Amino acid sequence: MNTGKKTRLNRILRQYGLGNGTAFFLPYDQGLEHGPRDFAPNPAASDPRYVVKLAVEGGFNGIVVQIGLAEKFYWDYAGEIPLVLKLNGKTDIPPDARALSPVNASVEDAVRLGADAVGYTLYVGTPAQEADFEQYRRVRDDAHRLGMPLIVWAYPRGEAIEAKGGKDSFYAVDYAARTASELGADVVKVNFPHPEKRTDVPAAYAEEFTSQQAIDAVVRSANRTLVLVSGGTKAGDEAMLEKARESMEAGATGLIFGRNVWQREHDESLRFVAALREILAKYPSA
Amino acid sequence: MNTGKKTRLNRILRQYGLGNGTAFFLPYDQGLEHGPRDFAPNPAASDPRYVVKLAVEGGFNGIVVQIGLAEKFYWDYAGEIPLVLKLNGKTDIPPDARALSPVNASVEDAVRLGADAVGYTLYVGTPAQEADFEQYRRVRDDAHRLGMPLIVWAYPRGEAIEAKGGKDSFYAVDYAARTASELGADVVKVNFPHPEKRTDVPAAYAEEFTSQQAIDAVVRSANRTLVLVSGGTKAGDEAMLEKARESMEAGATGLIFGRNVWQREHDESLRFVAALREILAKYPSA
Amino acid sequence: MNTGKKTRLNRILRQYGLGNGTAFFLPYDQGLEHGPRDFAPNPAASDPRYVVKLAVEGGFNGIVVQIGLAEKFYWDYAGEIPLVLKLNGKTDIPPDARALSPVNASVEDAVRLGADAVGYTLYVGTPAQEADFEQYRRVRDDAHRLGMPLIVWAYPRGEAIEAKGGKDSFYAVDYAARTASELGADVVKVNFPHPEKRTDVPAAYAEEFTSQQAIDAVVRSANRTLVLVSGGTKAGDEAMLEKARESMEAGATGLIFGRNVWQREHDESLRFVAALREILAKYPSA
Amino acid sequence: MNTGKKTRLNRILRQYGLGNGTAFFLPYDQGLEHGPRDFAPNPAASDPRYVVKLAVEGGFNGIVVQIGLAEKFYWDYAGEIPLVLKLNGKTDIPPDARALSPVNASVEDAVRLGADAVGYTLYVGTPAQEADFEQYRRVRDDAHRLGMPLIVWAYPRGEAIEAKGGKDSFYAVDYAARTASELGADVVKVNFPHPEKRTDVPAAYAEEFTSQQAIDAVVRSANRTLVLVSGGTKAGDEAMLEKARESMEAGATGLIFGRNVWQREHDESLRFVAALREILAKYPSA
Amino acid sequence: MNTGKKTRLNRILRQYGLGNGTAFFLPYDQGLEHGPRDFAPNPAASDPRYVVKLAVEGGFNGIVVQIGLAEKFYWDYAGEIPLVLKLNGKTDIPPDARALSPVNASVEDAVRLGADAVGYTLYVGTPAQEADFEQYRRVRDDAHRLGMPLIVWAYPRGEAIEAKGGKDSFYAVDYAARTASELGADVVKVNFPHPEKRTDVPAAYAEEFTSQQAIDAVVRSANRTLVLVSGGTKAGDEAMLEKARESMEAGATGLIFGRNVWQREHDESLRFVAALREILAKYPSA
Repeated sequence: MNTGKKTRLNRILRQYGLGNGTAFFLPYDQGLEHGPRDFAPNPAASDPRYVVKLAVEGGFNGIVVQIGLAEKFYWDYAGEIPLVLKLNGKTDIPPDARALSPVNASVEDAVRLGADAVGYTLYVGTPAQEADFEQYRRVRDDAHRLGMPLIVWAYPRGEAIEAKGGKDSFYAVDYAARTASELGADVVKVNFPHPEKRTDVPAAYAEEFTSQQAIDAVVRSANRTLVLVSGGTKAGDEAMLEKARESMEAGATGLIFGRNVWQREHDESLRFVAALREILAKYPSA
Repeated sequence: MNTGKKTRLNRILRQYGLGNGTAFFLPYDQGLEHGPRDFAPNPAASDPRYVVKLAVEGGFNGIVVQIGLAEKFYWDYAGEIPLVLKLNGKTDIPPDARALSPVNASVEDAVRLGADAVGYTLYVGTPAQEADFEQYRRVRDDAHRLGMPLIVWAYPRGEAIEAKGGKDSFYAVDYAARTASELGADVVKVNFPHPEKRTDVPAAYAEEFTSQQAIDAVVRSANRTLVLVSGGTKAGDEAMLEKARESMEAGATGLIFGRNVWQREHDESLRFVAALREILAKYPSA
Repeated sequence: MNTGKKTRLNRILRQYGLGNGTAFFLPYDQGLEHGPRDFAPNPAASDPRYVVKLAVEGGFNGIVVQIGLAEKFYWDYAGEIPLVLKLNGKTDIPPDARALSPVNASVEDAVRLGADAVGYTLYVGTPAQEADFEQYRRVRDDAHRLGMPLIVWAYPRGEAIEAKGGKDSFYAVDYAARTASELGADVVKVNFPHPEKRTDVPAAYAEEFTSQQAIDAVVRSANRTLVLVSGGTKAGDEAMLEKARESMEAGATGLIFGRNVWQREHDESLRFVAALREILAKYPSA
Repeated sequence: MNTGKKTRLNRILRQYGLGNGTAFFLPYDQGLEHGPRDFAPNPAASDPRYVVKLAVEGGFNGIVVQIGLAEKFYWDYAGEIPLVLKLNGKTDIPPDARALSPVNASVEDAVRLGADAVGYTLYVGTPAQEADFEQYRRVRDDAHRLGMPLIVWAYPRGEAIEAKGGKDSFYAVDYAARTASELGADVVKVNFPHPEKRTDVPAAYAEEFTSQQAIDAVVRSANRTLVLVSGGTKAGDEAMLEKARESMEAGATGLIFGRNVWQREHDESLRFVAALREILAKYPSA
Repeated sequence: MNTGKKTRLNRILRQYGLGNGTAFFLPYDQGLEHGPRDFAPNPAASDPRYVVKLAVEGGFNGIVVQIGLAEKFYWDYAGEIPLVLKLNGKTDIPPDARALSPVNASVEDAVRLGADAVGYTLYVGTPAQEADFEQYRRVRDDAHRLGMPLIVWAYPRGEAIEAKGGKDSFYAVDYAARTASELGADVVKVNFPHPEKRTDVPAAYAEEFTSQQAIDAVVRSANRTLVLVSGGTKAGDEAMLEKARESMEAGATGLIFGRNVWQREHDESLRFVAALREILAKYPSA
């Protein structure tokens, strides 16, 4: 990891959030990825000002947005919370069989906006992996050149994944984490693996595993690539907190929770955030 | 918004039209988008001189044309009305299932021609969104670099949109407005949303909404991106004026009316324009 | 129109041919577009020397060839007749449903060879319009930068055109002329429109029109873009001359006749050319 | 033809082989185009050293190889026989319906290796002609800029060709020769045309022609582009020699024989070469 | 072979491993190519530290990894074992019918990381060969320019290969070796050919061959391109050692064994490595 990357990652992990080496990110690109329908449970969340403020109040280590929101809303909170500029994204309108997330901003944009990291969604396993790896490569190159930490959203996707256990299967998540690591991600964001989804997965994944065993393996597959575990679609709080605990126990660096946080009323959000921070506080890293 | 963008947008909103911060644009690219058949109701409108003059007489804030007409006809009226150079466009001859509007002019062309803004059509939801986002990105980059305001025609389009309520559904228009905002448009042009088109739309849009509620939501989804509401195909005048009123009430910055204006006899056009200006006059912005 | 374009166009229109502002071009790219079979009616025409000489003898305003023939044969007649370098072309062997004419030479090549204009075939209405508009844009840019007049062969083509009246319908030709104009052609070459081909055309074209009305409309759609009317496949001489007269009456700048000229014996060619020149002589332009 | 091209072509035609202005090339790229199976009739030919030596012994005007063999084997014979660097090539494993021969070396590579010409395979008539013409254009440009003679392998190919007489029909070969000429080849390599293959060919080719008439026409279609006639798959010697005679009689510049030469025992190869040279000796060119 | 290539290849062949001119590489990119499931037989191998250390202990001539592992793990062993940076790779999730391995790192990256060679997977025979050859060409160019030896993984793949004997058939492996050689590889990695797989192969391969005859032919087809023979999927040790012996007897430069080495317990790995080194020791090259 070069000097620029280390400087910026250190700022995220040591100067914000709990400051104990763990990470807690608030992603806010669902307006593009799923559309404004995601704001229906809590219409206030449609307003970027509301969400950025929530991230500051909640003591997050960073907020993740697309360039449009970064340009128009980050200025007001610049310096108060690190910015992770998401460089690619897509709508969920056309079918996902050949999913590819086109790049709409550059690492240079991130530098100009004062971001401390960039995000890239890599759809592992789609038939479009050639185009994906190539555009990813240019992002990785620029991130290296400019000393910008690169967080890879490693998302199994596509027809073949659906036919082998689905996008949340232990097999798929484990492979995705490894792919990000082999391709040079600094940090990888994965969904929590489901070892019980094992229809037509390779033999090594067809046995019984506990969810702790699964997330342990995923973190091992990522090796020196830092792991962030995602909350995914809104689920029961206790289940969420348990997954968070298991992730940190496995050696993950942190969590990335969006809809689980802002799809509820403001104070309720902060209470849930506090519960997650409590977990993170137990896993400081040197 | 950088200095160049602010300078030019200010010129459009404060030095032309009503000068009260509202916007009223005359688009004239239908000769390319639909063909000369659009001029049949008023053959005089086939002549760009006629339409540019009409825009000046009507007190519009700008006229929107493709590069060919800008090169050949804007010189005569340069300085009398702002130019919005439309950078992409296509014919409506081949099917729309994978619609993509190819770029045929650059932001540099706009600068050279003295334009005060550029326009880009983004087809939200088509299977071609990868190519679209990528060419859009280059336009956004150039517009940023050259301080040129970027108006995005956010048009839901494609097979998947047709299967989820159609291109004018509240769902589709709302998603399109948000997409433009997240991807960094300065201004977004939307069609008026139809909340009654709700076959197979996501749950959040499947309920009953008034048209006022729908346009309110669309403007909120666009957040700090200025909203222009389009007249679309020629319709009854009263219906049109009502939509215009609701749009301004919702917080839109202005209107963009083409065929509704020039597909009628000259003085009739000016009378309709006057009625629309009356509405805009009631919604000055600071 | 910039200085370079005006200089070169002036040279074509005032210093060659009748010198009265009309244009008469001899296209000779059929060896590529249709293959040597086009030379069967007059095998001598297979030899580029024969055809270039014929153009000089016939007092044409220019000869249109692909780069290969320009490189090997124009030298002998350089300065005696203007060269229009056709920049794209294709064989007619594969099917036309997604027709696209790939660029095989540059505007720089045209400058180097002393050409006074460049030609580009735009297939209006094919599903490949995205690729077409993009490569066209680069040609237009270079032509602007180098002050080289750009003649667009505006050819309706593709499945959708076949389903709406066909490539020679009034609808298709009118749309093609407008497309070239909106996209910035200096000159547009169209086939003579057939108002009687109106199966499944838009309403505006479904009525009865005389051929004079049709060509009048096409010239209006082209507005300030100069119009050249093509002879197309060899047809009866009287019909041809009548079309030529109607075109000039409609305000076209000139004619572009290839196979109708060189697919007959030498002196017969010159007699037909003389008849066409007689018509052109009646329509001088200031 | 510019100075560099003339210099190099002169070297090939006057300083090697018979030195009488005729050309005789040995192509050796079948290991890539068909695979090592082509070496089965004479396993020694698998070794590039053997074949380059054979070309020197046989008094050829040049040897044609891909970059890999040029880099590893030409050094030993540099100066003893001209090198034609073949710039594109492909395996014959996937189907040919959309044949395109990807470029794998540059004209700059040819210059660096001391080559006197470059070769490019253009598949005339395939649905991939757009990509083909575009990559060809870049090669032509570079060849012009660097004064390197460009030999085009003009090969009719693809579904549409199969449906119109096939790749060796008079129609297809004639069209291919013309295409290379119009697109600026300095030299064109064609297969010997078969006038008897006339199922579904255009009318002009549907009549009876002798093979002499056919090759005469092909050479005329190529006009000032020099013609090389290929031996193709190994056939009877007498038939081969007769085709060679007819080709030279038609005005071809020379022959290009590979498998017919090296798919036989060493001395047998040289005897066949001597017979071909005897023919070439009868057609000196000024 | 230029000076830089010779310097680096010499370092690999003379200063590491047995130092006798033979090569023995440990490839470790299976985490990307097949996923972490490959580590199931020996979970320790999931950790790159374990595998790099094993390569050092086993006296290999180099370790082959993707950029992500090279960036994060090679530093610790830099100078102790040569690095071969694999420049392309893909997951095995989507189907292989049109296999193409996208480039994710550059020759410049290899130089920066102190690598002594780069690796490129060329899928010989897939319908994607055009894209493959083109991206390969850029790699070859850069490798030449920077004096970096280029090892080509020549892998027959795709529908057409499956229909002609399969990817391990003598026909397919022989063709792949030749392709790499003609396209300029310095070293080619092949799988051991299976002469008994001869369903629907070309006539030349339809006869009976011993495995020695097959590997002899493959090495001849590669001519001056150095040959590495791969272990492939884990098989019986005796069979493996026999193949290794036959390969070296045929004139191969060395071996490349991954899963056969690290998919077993640590000391067992070293014992198998020792057996392979014993064979290599018998085939020193000058």
